[in-house]
This record gives sequence, C-alpha cells and structure tokens, in this order.
Amino acid sequence: MLTVLVAPDSFKGCLTSVEVANALASGWRRARPDDALRFSPLADGGEGTLDAIQAAGGWAQMPAAARDPLGRPLSGRFLRQGRRAAVELAVASGLSRVMPEERDALAASTFGTGLILAAAIGLGVRDVVLGVGGSATTDGGSGLLTALGARFLDSDGHDLPGGGGPLGRLARVDLSGLAPVLADVRLTVASDVTNPLLGELGAAAVYGPQKGADEAQVAQLDGNLAHYADLLEAATARRVRDVPGAGAAGGTTFGLLAIADRFASFEVRPGVDVLMELTGFGEKLDEADLVLTGEGRVDAQTAYGKTALGVARRAAAARRGCVCFGGGVTPEGSAGLAEIGTIVVPVVESPIPVEAAIALGSGPVERAAERTAELISLAEMLTRTSRGDGRRPQNGR
Amino acid sequence: MLTVLVAPDSFKGCLTSVEVANALASGWRRARPDDALRFSPLADGGEGTLDAIQAAGGWAQMPAAARDPLGRPLSGRFLRQGRRAAVELAVASGLSRVMPEERDALAASTFGTGLILAAAIGLGVRDVVLGVGGSATTDGGSGLLTALGARFLDSDGHDLPGGGGPLGRLARVDLSGLAPVLADVRLTVASDVTNPLLGELGAAAVYGPQKGADEAQVAQLDGNLAHYADLLEAATARRVRDVPGAGAAGGTTFGLLAIADRFASFEVRPGVDVLMELTGFGEKLDEADLVLTGEGRVDAQTAYGKTALGVARRAAAARRGCVCFGGGVTPEGSAGLAEIGTIVVPVVESPIPVEAAIALGSGPVERAAERTAELISLAEMLTRTSRGDGRRPQNGR
Repeated sequence: MLTVLVAPDSFKGCLTSVEVANALASGWRRARPDDALRFSPLADGGEGTLDAIQAAGGWAQMPAAARDPLGRPLSGRFLRQGRRAAVELAVASGLSRVMPEERDALAASTFGTGLILAAAIGLGVRDVVLGVGGSATTDGGSGLLTALGARFLDSDGHDLPGGGGPLGRLARVDLSGLAPVLADVRLTVASDVTNPLLGELGAAAVYGPQKGADEAQVAQLDGNLAHYADLLEAATARRVRDVPGAGAAGGTTFGLLAIADRFASFEVRPGVDVLMELTGFGEKLDEADLVLTGEGRVDAQTAYGKTALGVARRAAAARRGCVCFGGGVTPEGSAGLAEIGTIVVPVVESPIPVEAAIALGSGPVERAAERTAELISLAEMLTRTSRGDGRRPQNGR
Repeated sequence: MLTVLVAPDSFKGCLTSVEVANALASGWRRARPDDALRFSPLADGGEGTLDAIQAAGGWAQMPAAARDPLGRPLSGRFLRQGRRAAVELAVASGLSRVMPEERDALAASTFGTGLILAAAIGLGVRDVVLGVGGSATTDGGSGLLTALGARFLDSDGHDLPGGGGPLGRLARVDLSGLAPVLADVRLTVASDVTNPLLGELGAAAVYGPQKGADEAQVAQLDGNLAHYADLLEAATARRVRDVPGAGAAGGTTFGLLAIADRFASFEVRPGVDVLMELTGFGEKLDEADLVLTGEGRVDAQTAYGKTALGVARRAAAARRGCVCFGGGVTPEGSAGLAEIGTIVVPVVESPIPVEAAIALGSGPVERAAERTAELISLAEMLTRTSRGDGRRPQNGR
C-alpha cells in the first residue's frame, strides 16, 4: 500500500486541476484500490484557484455579495480557514463573467473583488491570499482600492466611474478613507505574471486585446494607466510601476503595490508556491511515497517555471518519487523533468489532432493513471517474487 | 536485475518488428542498463520475416540465386539452422521487388521463390518454413511448383510462360518431374491469410488490385485460377481451392496444398506461432521475468488474432508480466489486453496527425520503453524502501 499525493496543474483549455486530480485518482484506484490518496490540486492564482484549494480540504466556502466587471450584482465567494482567507479575483472580476459580446475593456472594474476582500476582512480575516489572473479588467486595481476606501476623483471632485477608461479624467487620488484595519491585514498576491504596468509589455498592450480592447483602446488604456500611476505613486510616495508583475490582472497588482505599506505585510508570490501552502502540499508530501502531478503541455517551457516543475522540484528535494502526466509531451519537456528524477507520462493514446484530444476530456488521463498504477503493481510483484524463488514472477494483475 | 524478452510485431507502415525491438531495447537500457534483454521480434510470414528471425539469433543467412516476379535475376537469400530453413516469399516474389510503374499482375510469377526453396533443399535442408505474404503474384503458386519440377503446358505441349495471365491457356499439368526429395521434406507455410483461392474473397479479387490488376484483369485472373485449379486438382485428386488460406500470396498456398501429399508433412500455420518457434520465444519466455511486445495499433481488432495478443496470451499462460506498446491505442484495445493481464502503453506523446506520428519513427517507442523501465525502477525502490523504515522511499532515479 502506497500513500500517493495527487497534485496536478490544470490542463489549460481542457480540464481544471480539480478535474485532472479526480481523473488521476479514478484511474489509479481502478488499478490500486488500497493505496491512500491525498489531494493538492494546484492553480496559478487565476480562475479555478478556489476550487483547487477547496478540493484539498480544510477550507470553508463563504458567500460574499459582489459586482461583476461591469458593475452588475453578483453572488461572490471566498474560502476561509479561521483568520485566513483565499480570494480569487476571477470570481467577481474574471473574463468569464462577461459574455464575449458584452466585453468592454474601458469600463471593466475590479470593484467586485474589492467588495469580497472587504467582506472577508469584515468577518475577522487578517491573512488574505488574493489570486489574480484571468481578469476582464484594465483599471490598475482602482476599483479594488475603491472598495477598500480609496477615492479617485475628477477635476470637479466627483468620483470617477469604474474602469480604466475614465482614469484619463483622474485629477486627484484620496487615500484618507482607506480602512485602518488594513494595518492588521497580511496580504499575499498569488501571481505568475511578470509584466510591468506600462508599455509594450504592460497590462494594456499584452492582455488588453483578449479583454476586448482594440488598438486605439489599448493605447488609451496604457496612457490612462500611466496618468493614474503618476497620481497614485505621488500620493503614496512609492514608485512601483516597473516592479515585475505590477501589470497582473490589468494592473491590480500595481494598485496594491502602491498602497503596500498600508498593510501589516504585503507580498507577491508565485501562484504555485502559495497554492502549495494553502493546500497543505508540504505536510502531505511528508506523508507520501509518491507524487502524481500533471500539466497540459510538458515542453521546453515547463523547464522555466511551470507548475509541474515546481511540484517535481519539491518531490525531488523530499526524495519522493514523482510522475508527471502531460496532455502533450515533447522530448525536451520530458528530458527537463527527467533531470530531477520525475518520470513523464503522456496521456494521449493515439495520433489525433489537438482539438480531438481536448474533446476526449478526462478519459485518457484516467487511463494513463491506471496503467501507471498497473506498472507499479507489476514491478512490486516482480520485486517481491525475485526475492522468493529467484526468477518466477506472477503477472501484475 | 530483470530478464526482459522483447517480442514486438512491426508497426505497419512505420517500423519493422526488428526496428521496434531495437527501439524498445535502446529506451529500456537507458533506464535499466543492468537488465538482461532477449529478442524475439515477430512477423506474420510477410516481408521482414527473415529479418525478424535473424535478429533473434541462431540462424545463418545463405545466399540463393533467384528471379524477381518478372523473371529478372536476383540475389536471394534464406536462413538456415542445420537441416532447418526459413524462406520468405517476399524476398524474391514480393511486391517491393517491382517498381509501381512496372507492376504486371498477369505476368508476375513465384518462380524465384521456388528457386530459393529448391536451393535450400539442395543444400540438405529437410524442414522448411515458407513465409508467404506481400507477394506481387497471382499465379496460384504455379511458378514455385515449376521450380520444384512441375510442368504447366499449353495445348501444343509447350511450357507456359510464368504468371497468372498465361494460365488461361493451360491444357495439361505434368507433376511427374516433381523432385522425389520432397518426400523427405517437411514444409510449413506461415500465413495469417484466410481467403480461399477463388471468388469475391479470393486471391485475385481481394489482393489483385494492390498488385496492379484492373477490374478486367481481376476477372481474367480469377477465371484463370479456376481453370488452373480444375486441372491441378484433377492431377492430384485433391480439392483444396476452398481451404481457408488457399488464396494467400496469389494462390501460392493453394498450389502447395494441391501437392501436399508429395511432402513428408505439410502444414499451414499462423505466422506468429511459427515465428515464435523459429525465434525461440518459448525458451526465452521461460527465462524471462517480463515480456515487452508491441503493435502499430492496439484496437478492438487486436482482440481478434493480432500478434501482440498472441504474445500476451503466451505471457499470461506462463504467468509472466507483459507490457504491450502501441503506436496508437483505443480504450477497447487496451481493455481487451488488460483482461489477460497485459498493460498497454501508448507510445504517442502529443496530439498530432497520424502522418506526423509515423514520420517521428522510433524515437517515441524508445522513450515509451524508457519511461516504463523508469516506472519499474521507481516501484522497485518504493517496494524495497517500504520494507525498510516503513515509509521513506527514495526517488526512482
């Protein structure tokens, strides 16, 4: 009997990390029903982050009234564990909250996420992880800050409407209303984005188009964010626009970086590291014999910071066996993980186009886990038998 | 250390069984250099049969002057082991001996194969396996029988030219010249074909088109074979045209069935069974811990007599572990082999079109074997460690 830690990333565009974890578990159990399975599905702070944490167990889901990116009321949620909370920006401010035909890159606001954050703090939470990613917004986090008490005013002293578009008319930033309780709150932003706020690699240029911004709107948003940054940085006396990752979620991280000293502590950390903590990965790894992870594509890029690599490294450091299931695998990706002792197993079963492979859903993942578990059982049998009468193994099933 | 028997079929249209065996061995050795590998690559009696037998070891290659299907001189060969020989019809009479633009379904003859057979017998061989399959011919084996001493005459008493076309003018069959030594020769035909000689499922109708016959020629060849069968069966007083498999290699099996009682013994057997004998599969299986087989496609059809299934069944009967590598695998194919305890491992690594997968050659096969061997090592380590301090496995590499 083995204890197996199931800690995959999502297969982007196909399966969430929770779905991958469930598929791996189903397949594994078919072949080895007696093994103990533990779960720590991973995410990068984007959409599905809360689901992943919840699947690991130990967290309570809390409702929170919020607004969608266009200001419409929405039933939001966060996860709570005593004085800790996990908030996912995509829950209220995610791109999936807006129909493609409704997309409005200029008006989309992070105000709803700020409401959820405020609700959690109001309930006594003092340690918050905010997963950013998958946002519909390019407002520099101004909506979120507004929900926490900041004001963004035009030249007539009126509050600006939400979104990055109106920020062009920003005349004054008033942070005097920021909730004093923030000084007791430890905030951690979970994000894998490294973009700065502005310019060619900035929030508007890189992510604006997928949020519905045309070329002119991208230029307008980039200009507005520059103007907003001038005023907000002046108000806090912190220049943070060029911090790597400031451009995450349409500049939400920039907004939080600007008021970082208002919090008890503020940190931006890679999503996978944060998720590992929240899902108890370390404790579960200590108790595990074997780790199963997974990634949609295991390619040369996997060798540069993708989730599966993080899991593989932790497994290697703890001297645990690790198998990485890949929706698609290249020899380079395989070799990269092999260097740290992880065995890469492709889940694809026959030569078919990518679209067809994606349409197959979780079945191939289940079967890949099943045959891997069967090979483990076969080898166990071979090992045991070869200690008995020397060379008379039984079949593995 | 394990003893591993490598016994794959070819991946049709991509890799010969010898190439598959070499790829599996390379990959396996990368991960487990200390295991002892034994080889028994398989074939169905068609092209590549001699290569497979030779790779298993223990056979000497002998040259034999022959003729190609169109009568041109050719350096042929067969394999010899004492008084046993293996002859491959495709060596002299195979479709690959004729350029596509040269194909002449009416003229193609098995005479060259008969020359090789005669040469082997002349050297003292008394036990011959003849692999048929992949032929360019539709001559009912008349060319082969001619090389053994039979005569096929027209109404003027002249020997007919080779091929199925001239058989329409056959007036008399003269078997008086058949070599008397045949009475000391045990002949086994290795063939997986089940077609009868004539009709809709016969040699001309089913295989004629791929040998270059148009519709009219198919009809002519079928008619000529019927006429030939009438006279040959009358000459031997044996009706064998409807025996399953008589239609193999353009009716070559029919011709041999007709003169079966001239041999010390005559048998038609499934190619894989014969190949297993010639490559010492049984003895090697006895000494093996684990069997690796493989098949281009592991699908529902695999459950109906394909090579990998034969290997899997033998492994199961001997209570040995068995892993089947598939170029492409369907869930049904996988389930069929799982029923007898074989673990099916797809070699494909990412979702790509079939043509692209075939173009990748042996690399994916190597890597599939490598990661399977790695999983075996990982499990060995887990098994050994869990007997030590209870729950502290080392990584598998």
